[in-house]
Amino acid sequence: METKLAGRTTEVVISPLTPTVMIGERINPTGKRRLAAAMVAGDLDLIRRYAREQAAAGATVIDVNVGAAGVDEDTFLAEAVQAVAEEVDLPLAIDSTRPRALESALKVAPGRPLVNSVNGEERSLSEILPLVAQFGLPTVALCMDDNGIPSDADGRLAVAARIAERAESLGVPSEDLVVDCLALTCSSDPNAPSVTLEAMRKVRQELGVNLTLGASNASFGLPDRDLLNGVFLALAIGVGLNAPIVDPEKARPYILAADVLLGKDEWAMRYIADFRCRQAQG
Amino acid sequence: METKLAGRTTEVVISPLTPTVMIGERINPTGKRRLAAAMVAGDLDLIRRYAREQAAAGATVIDVNVGAAGVDEDTFLAEAVQAVAEEVDLPLAIDSTRPRALESALKVAPGRPLVNSVNGEERSLSEILPLVAQFGLPTVALCMDDNGIPSDADGRLAVAARIAERAESLGVPSEDLVVDCLALTCSSDPNAPSVTLEAMRKVRQELGVNLTLGASNASFGLPDRDLLNGVFLALAIGVGLNAPIVDPEKARPYILAADVLLGKDEWAMRYIADFRCRQAQG
Repeated sequence: METKLAGRTTEVVISPLTPTVMIGERINPTGKRRLAAAMVAGDLDLIRRYAREQAAAGATVIDVNVGAAGVDEDTFLAEAVQAVAEEVDLPLAIDSTRPRALESALKVAPGRPLVNSVNGEERSLSEILPLVAQFGLPTVALCMDDNGIPSDADGRLAVAARIAERAESLGVPSEDLVVDCLALTCSSDPNAPSVTLEAMRKVRQELGVNLTLGASNASFGLPDRDLLNGVFLALAIGVGLNAPIVDPEKARPYILAADVLLGKDEWAMRYIADFRCRQAQG
Repeated sequence: METKLAGRTTEVVISPLTPTVMIGERINPTGKRRLAAAMVAGDLDLIRRYAREQAAAGATVIDVNVGAAGVDEDTFLAEAVQAVAEEVDLPLAIDSTRPRALESALKVAPGRPLVNSVNGEERSLSEILPLVAQFGLPTVALCMDDNGIPSDADGRLAVAARIAERAESLGVPSEDLVVDCLALTCSSDPNAPSVTLEAMRKVRQELGVNLTLGASNASFGLPDRDLLNGVFLALAIGVGLNAPIVDPEKARPYILAADVLLGKDEWAMRYIADFRCRQAQG
């Protein structure tokens, strides 16, 4: 199953057989005081820089999230999206829970962006999913609903299936769904990563859809987070994750290694090129 | 299913639910000129040192292999085993394809060592497996036979099943088999690691046995081998590997991270202790 995204002139395909697609996560003010302050001030420079840096680090989709206190998402998300589209010719992921913000940003985004995200809450299904259908776009689908995040794998599969059904009824095909089974921190629940991995395996097997994941939550509160996140990404790619939302600089070595080992990087050409590049940079 | 190993006074249990057991691979002269030369000279100092170093690095089983040109395995393996047993109180893996060498080493090994290894070749089944049965020991079972290493997962499962059957007929229960699905280098066949992972998943599912793997072959000929081996170990642990044969110093961070994420290290206690230890060492 192929999910096709596009920027102005570039196309990115998410599929089980092609290399893992890195969605750059850094344009998101959560926990980033400096970026949040720039967004409140309406300053686009840092956003532009993060877009360039992530593209240089191997991200082929750039997520844009401006959800900080004091920012009017409904107007600023579109501005940020335009700024990023001026910097890099890559597909964007338009990241908001506000229908108005999404709508105005989708109107200015070039190509075929990824909507990030719908979920199983009735409000999301009735306000955001129709927007996805109207624009004819692919969307991230989060495995949570009005009852929260199911604690087991079958519960998350059930939410994903319900979103897929509702999407189909609006004319959004399952190849345009990229399901996020949600990574919770394992320092509060030791079984959390296992549940996420099991949910991914099942969603992939039952629904056949492509999978995204914001994997870095899993390591919250633990030391050496880059290692833990990298190993979690490898485990997740092993069960079908193919479009993780990551800091590309930190995650890339692990993702490229996993791709070699899972037959997604024939003759290790991408892995070797990256190694040479890292060596050249010292 | 539990495989129980023992040293003089320590016991090590390999099971799907407990932390991954690291079998230290360094006492093996293959590709190590200095160690091979020491073995030819009958010098046990380096062997003793590698035993201590690996125990300090977290190995809880020590593999002993003296198969170098110019070494009389039939007598020297037992000497090496005795030396290692004097240095560290851990279960040993007695690593040879020669029945005579194995027999004399097993006679002097303390506790309950792991025989490394039998395979599906008729010679191995008729000469080494009876030795395993006679001593009542657990053994590594390699997924290869007189036709070589099967190129697909089902072929390797079939060999493992045949060894298990033959073992049972001699009174060796399947909890005393630790199956090695064999990692081949991915620079000569890009699908090799996927086949190994698939074979492990199937062997684990169909036979329920514990799994070992000498994972470092996979990265042969590629740069940044520690990363590639570490990520391969994580993927393999994700499908059931629970007693890999590794260089513990290099593999430990990846293995401990995978254990946290797969719920085998509750509250990440081992992971955090190791992180502090690494920090203290600078």
